[in-house]
Amino acid sequence: MTDSPVLALAKDLISRQSVTPIDAGCQDLMIQRLKALGFEIESMVFEDTTNFWARKGTEAPLFTFAGHTDVVPAGKLEQWHTPPFEPTIIDDHLHGRGAADMKGSLACMIVAVERFLAENPNHKGSIGFLITSDEEGPFINGTTRVVDTLMERNEMIDMCIVGEPSSTLKVGDVVKNGRRGSITGDITIKGTQGHVAYPHLANNPVHQSLPALAELATMKWDDGNEYFPPTSFQIPNVHAGTGASNVIPGEFNVQFNLRFSTELTADEIKRRVHSTLDAHGLDYDLHWTLNGLPFLTDTGELLDAVVKAVKEVNHQEPQLLTTGGTSDGRFIAQMGAQVVELGPVNATIHKVNECVSIHDLELLTDMYQKTLENLLA
Amino acid sequence: MTDSPVLALAKDLISRQSVTPIDAGCQDLMIQRLKALGFEIESMVFEDTTNFWARKGTEAPLFTFAGHTDVVPAGKLEQWHTPPFEPTIIDDHLHGRGAADMKGSLACMIVAVERFLAENPNHKGSIGFLITSDEEGPFINGTTRVVDTLMERNEMIDMCIVGEPSSTLKVGDVVKNGRRGSITGDITIKGTQGHVAYPHLANNPVHQSLPALAELATMKWDDGNEYFPPTSFQIPNVHAGTGASNVIPGEFNVQFNLRFSTELTADEIKRRVHSTLDAHGLDYDLHWTLNGLPFLTDTGELLDAVVKAVKEVNHQEPQLLTTGGTSDGRFIAQMGAQVVELGPVNATIHKVNECVSIHDLELLTDMYQKTLENLLA
Repeated sequence: MTDSPVLALAKDLISRQSVTPIDAGCQDLMIQRLKALGFEIESMVFEDTTNFWARKGTEAPLFTFAGHTDVVPAGKLEQWHTPPFEPTIIDDHLHGRGAADMKGSLACMIVAVERFLAENPNHKGSIGFLITSDEEGPFINGTTRVVDTLMERNEMIDMCIVGEPSSTLKVGDVVKNGRRGSITGDITIKGTQGHVAYPHLANNPVHQSLPALAELATMKWDDGNEYFPPTSFQIPNVHAGTGASNVIPGEFNVQFNLRFSTELTADEIKRRVHSTLDAHGLDYDLHWTLNGLPFLTDTGELLDAVVKAVKEVNHQEPQLLTTGGTSDGRFIAQMGAQVVELGPVNATIHKVNECVSIHDLELLTDMYQKTLENLLA
Repeated sequence: MTDSPVLALAKDLISRQSVTPIDAGCQDLMIQRLKALGFEIESMVFEDTTNFWARKGTEAPLFTFAGHTDVVPAGKLEQWHTPPFEPTIIDDHLHGRGAADMKGSLACMIVAVERFLAENPNHKGSIGFLITSDEEGPFINGTTRVVDTLMERNEMIDMCIVGEPSSTLKVGDVVKNGRRGSITGDITIKGTQGHVAYPHLANNPVHQSLPALAELATMKWDDGNEYFPPTSFQIPNVHAGTGASNVIPGEFNVQFNLRFSTELTADEIKRRVHSTLDAHGLDYDLHWTLNGLPFLTDTGELLDAVVKAVKEVNHQEPQLLTTGGTSDGRFIAQMGAQVVELGPVNATIHKVNECVSIHDLELLTDMYQKTLENLLA
């Protein structure tokens, strides 16, 4: 039996060892197919990152597929049942690094567009592809810079599907229609170093900080809303001390991270944290990193089209969620675009023996194609 | 001007580079002098540590001088005004590593005993010397093992002066008549590692621990007593996290140390800590290290003799304190001995440009000699 077009392309992509930020020729594969369809291709290499922007048509609306060709490292090779960069089929699943995140999605997008264009040569609007090789890495020279370039010349994406593996048990059971924001704070609480035997001559910053940290850790930040869970605060890293058991530390380093809903702004979070630390009289330095603003694509043209497509293929209403980590969708949403994420089951992503159901790849291709039909036919 | 006997011996000791656990011939110098006085010498080498036990007489009471020939490292040589192991006199002070902690004291002890024996050849009781080369290090093969050896053969020290630099501004202004106990706890609080974006699937041990730690850090452990300051609790070291800002840590390591008075026992401390951690429902491992039990030498024969000697020399009542770090006195106190610490001003110990007043060395020799007279003449 010969492979279906989507399976063949997915295998071809997986066989290229494109660990972030290496593209390893994946984008060339996609570009060949898109050129044959009449897309205009614009390669955008920034530093170590390979990106491309492809567009067919000049009319509005501009609908875009977004994704990444890079994958996370394979991890421990001896734990893989098959070589991670040799696409292998076991029990109707395609195995290999990137099968679900997100080379499978890329293959579905290409084949969906090929089929749509064959059936709708005179469609409305325009179709774009925004592809990067740095989504799993520092995301500095990837989607964000392509978005900047497009915005500078006022070429605005109206609607976008990001191919991130959004599904939980069955492809399309979850569509992500937004993502929480993420902000990180690095605090250095300052005390006075000294000998444990002479505590009156020292000031232990760990002791000083405990009540304020307890307050932040139990604070109710908001109630979330229809689409967002309540904002959450976590302390991923703390450190104090020289290692010696007789030295009161002079500094206490605490890192915290908030995943926040559209009910809160970064400024309001900063205000509340400072207010709590100040109320406890702490002497501290605090450095903020805003990893991403929250975004939400409420009911509207794109979400309606995607939900309808999923239902047509799956006979099941997708759940709309905004949970999970950040994705490149946040950068595209900054253009004012409607953005949703629809992709395969994410159970094996970033793990050894990553795989995707071959049948799901066919279903996802249908969902992408039907979305195009709902929007542009 | 020729050096006085005590200055000459102090210089001789300082010129030997006896950084823990190296003795560098210091003990041989002392042994020669003690042999000449008729002491029986017993060398006790345990692993890397050189110790000796010397005794003159077989009668009770057994009075002992205890001390160490090892010194802490010199630290940054460029910050020393004089080479640390070349004894040098500047402004009536003897400079060099160990001048105050405690080669000066060792010289005073030897000369005091020489003078006392010359004047009191038929004194009461016995005189001992318990000298180690590992007081500044891990204190595993030093005084504690000599004490074990003596206790095994039931040779019990009745009274002991440890030559630790007890004084603050003027030699003899402070006599230490006990030391606080020291106990260290290493807790590993166990949670469930996870992604910051999915806090409901994880359990952050830092968050879980904050209220319990805050409670321990502000707990009133006791009120101390006449001789002891209140027991103090300090957290010298904490660590949690992988370094990544998106990973909720699976473990939180916290080290705490208590310096405790004779109002509290190690068992009672353990009970209270466990009770606090348990009350907060924490899942944890806790490893205890008892660094030393508290001891107290209340008014009695030795303390009276020392206080009287100090007053005779200084015309000033010494302050009796139990503050400061641990010392080898804790091991000797386990024999049931009365133990006090009397030595030079400690302002420069463990620092660069360590020094001792030459005049103080003469005064300290007089204090040691008068103590012997008060007890054994």
